[in-house]
Amino acid sequence: MTDTASPPPARRLPEHAPMQQFAVQEGELVIGGERLSVLAERVGQTPFYAYDRGALRQRVAELRQALPRQVKLHYAMKANPMPAVVGFMAGLVDGIDVASAGELKVALDAGADPAEVSFAGPGKTEAELRRAVASRVLINLESAREVQLLAGITQRLGLPARVAVRVNPDFELKGSGMKMGGGPKQFGVDVEQLPALMAEIRAAGLGFEGFHLFAGSQNLRAESICDAQQQSYALALRLAEIAPAPVQFLNLGGGFGIPYFPGEQRLDLAPIGENLAGLVERAARELPQASLVIELGRYLVGEAGVYVARVLDRKVSRGQVFLVTDGGLHHHLSASGNFGQVVRKNYPVTIGNRLGEEAREAASVVGPLCTPLDLLADRMQLPVAREGDLAVVFQSGAYGASASPQNFLGHPGCVEVLV
Amino acid sequence: MTDTASPPPARRLPEHAPMQQFAVQEGELVIGGERLSVLAERVGQTPFYAYDRGALRQRVAELRQALPRQVKLHYAMKANPMPAVVGFMAGLVDGIDVASAGELKVALDAGADPAEVSFAGPGKTEAELRRAVASRVLINLESAREVQLLAGITQRLGLPARVAVRVNPDFELKGSGMKMGGGPKQFGVDVEQLPALMAEIRAAGLGFEGFHLFAGSQNLRAESICDAQQQSYALALRLAEIAPAPVQFLNLGGGFGIPYFPGEQRLDLAPIGENLAGLVERAARELPQASLVIELGRYLVGEAGVYVARVLDRKVSRGQVFLVTDGGLHHHLSASGNFGQVVRKNYPVTIGNRLGEEAREAASVVGPLCTPLDLLADRMQLPVAREGDLAVVFQSGAYGASASPQNFLGHPGCVEVLV
Repeated sequence: MTDTASPPPARRLPEHAPMQQFAVQEGELVIGGERLSVLAERVGQTPFYAYDRGALRQRVAELRQALPRQVKLHYAMKANPMPAVVGFMAGLVDGIDVASAGELKVALDAGADPAEVSFAGPGKTEAELRRAVASRVLINLESAREVQLLAGITQRLGLPARVAVRVNPDFELKGSGMKMGGGPKQFGVDVEQLPALMAEIRAAGLGFEGFHLFAGSQNLRAESICDAQQQSYALALRLAEIAPAPVQFLNLGGGFGIPYFPGEQRLDLAPIGENLAGLVERAARELPQASLVIELGRYLVGEAGVYVARVLDRKVSRGQVFLVTDGGLHHHLSASGNFGQVVRKNYPVTIGNRLGEEAREAASVVGPLCTPLDLLADRMQLPVAREGDLAVVFQSGAYGASASPQNFLGHPGCVEVLV
Repeated sequence: MTDTASPPPARRLPEHAPMQQFAVQEGELVIGGERLSVLAERVGQTPFYAYDRGALRQRVAELRQALPRQVKLHYAMKANPMPAVVGFMAGLVDGIDVASAGELKVALDAGADPAEVSFAGPGKTEAELRRAVASRVLINLESAREVQLLAGITQRLGLPARVAVRVNPDFELKGSGMKMGGGPKQFGVDVEQLPALMAEIRAAGLGFEGFHLFAGSQNLRAESICDAQQQSYALALRLAEIAPAPVQFLNLGGGFGIPYFPGEQRLDLAPIGENLAGLVERAARELPQASLVIELGRYLVGEAGVYVARVLDRKVSRGQVFLVTDGGLHHHLSASGNFGQVVRKNYPVTIGNRLGEEAREAASVVGPLCTPLDLLADRMQLPVAREGDLAVVFQSGAYGASASPQNFLGHPGCVEVLV
């Protein structure tokens, strides 16, 4: 320390990870090869979601590059069930995971091969189970009740239900945004209850094919994903000994996250690829009939999508700038922070037609709803926006349109486009 | 203190306010005069929302009893826009407040008198404003931009737009669940900007009718509601001096809350009635042409509704009981805690066909979605429930169906019934 006054080193606030999945042309974001302002005209209205085929293709290619070729990639369509997206993804990945009979219909309509479709979810109704058996897809069992229902359905239809067992493991995926395994859970069957369940499956004459282990989601730490995969594999190996038939299908879950908030970095795939290569090698010896499956939703589609809303009004209230747009939480609940977030944080947001300009004012981007919850960006550093500009929320390809209360306050529903 | 060991007095945990708005018959909740199990058969499916006409009527009657007869009661239909509910409420209250052109259509279809309909909301589109002017309803102005748009519309249609000014006051409603006035806000026009706005309204030839002051919502403390009403009235009186025409319409907002969570008590209407009586008397002298309006959404309909889901599975995972139902956050986001709540708390929940039985186990009521967010009750003390039982979420008449992401995971949409 000296007695000379010198400014303290500037403390850098955490920043959003760079959003470079889209090109920029003449200061405008380019989605699906088209400048944003032209795309908005093509769509015919704002607000809208746009999903970029090129970005989807590239994401799958990166995964194929990083992971061993023997690993099967599944798309968990709950992340984005737009039929066109599901159809496009069905052509890129090895299978589709559905969470309801409604999703099952979309997947089959989209051309997914039933042999590679699996259906998970607690509280499946008997009608849903009948549709699944008749569709010849794999059913991830979540409870003993489903075994009993499937026994009856198998007999009545003369088709043995194809089943895997969703296991509630006795460990937890660390560092996960959303914990879904370990401890008491509504998902899957506790490891401790599996011996009895296996006997019931055998007695009921169901077609046992394997296990589904899902430890969490939205994880950005490769190390904890590798750790969970190792533990899941070890558990499956142990469970294979009491299984009624050889394991053909081993779903190790997913959990791969994408960066949403300031300070978050993209996941490093390399260590996950190495880890899986080791497991593939072990499985070839220890579970020779098994395919290892990685199930990804958000990671496949989240970064490929944007939500676009037009600035209707620029209001300054007591010194604070509000960009009032025609889009809001009724279309994009997640970006508003009202879906699973504990503390509201900003998604990456920009003014999509002013990308060359300096971000020189702090503005809040809000929607048209009569509630302070309708906030897409809270005092974010942005270029100076005007009426007619296009506000863009990045990282909007997953859990956007389908996870939002579109009827709230009677505004028009949102439009989605795959470009 | 003595040295004799004696147990500490039992600490009572906070409890939900008693839910006595519905009768009980043979251990079953009675909604719309019908036992729940019969009502479920009539609806033809679970899950469903049921809204009780008798409870709606009684709530309005209580308000009429407690508040001076000169005060007009408006229904903010954003709380529950089911057309049948809006139609029923239109027959009970003095006016309907809408938040979008979509809601406006429902209100007019329901038979609301356009003279008593008002339309508020930031970011109104020009198309919405045209529809509002052509419908001859009152428009609550939220910004100078709307004055300019309405000037053009007024001229083109040859109909002077009816306007009130939504004011962003320079104070805040204390103890409010959701603050909507004071400080920088996207709602209304800052008091400081009103002189300029009034001049613009006059110049544009719009039909000025009054003010809308809305300080917050979901408040359970009568004292702070009275305080906000006093301050709102005083502010309106001050603003009347610069208004382009006499004040005919003075919307003092609402903010009346209902008890959702353990420890919350019902609002005491008596002091609010007394307070308003004083303001009515003052207004008769000071703003002789003005009607005082109280705008209520949640308070009118929230307690009259239940959400009903059937127990599909009873799972015990590591000692914890899960009642897996066919209903969940896709229909009732608010009860899951994923809408505006900072810390998740339980709505009042019961087993609607076991009301006579002792609540002797702690059970979690969950939905069919593949996410741990899908939680309707977290370890709540309930009668021992079985498959086929009907789980009931009370306080579900407002911000339920319309505020929920019904498309999430492709399950069927919910059904609403007014009985």
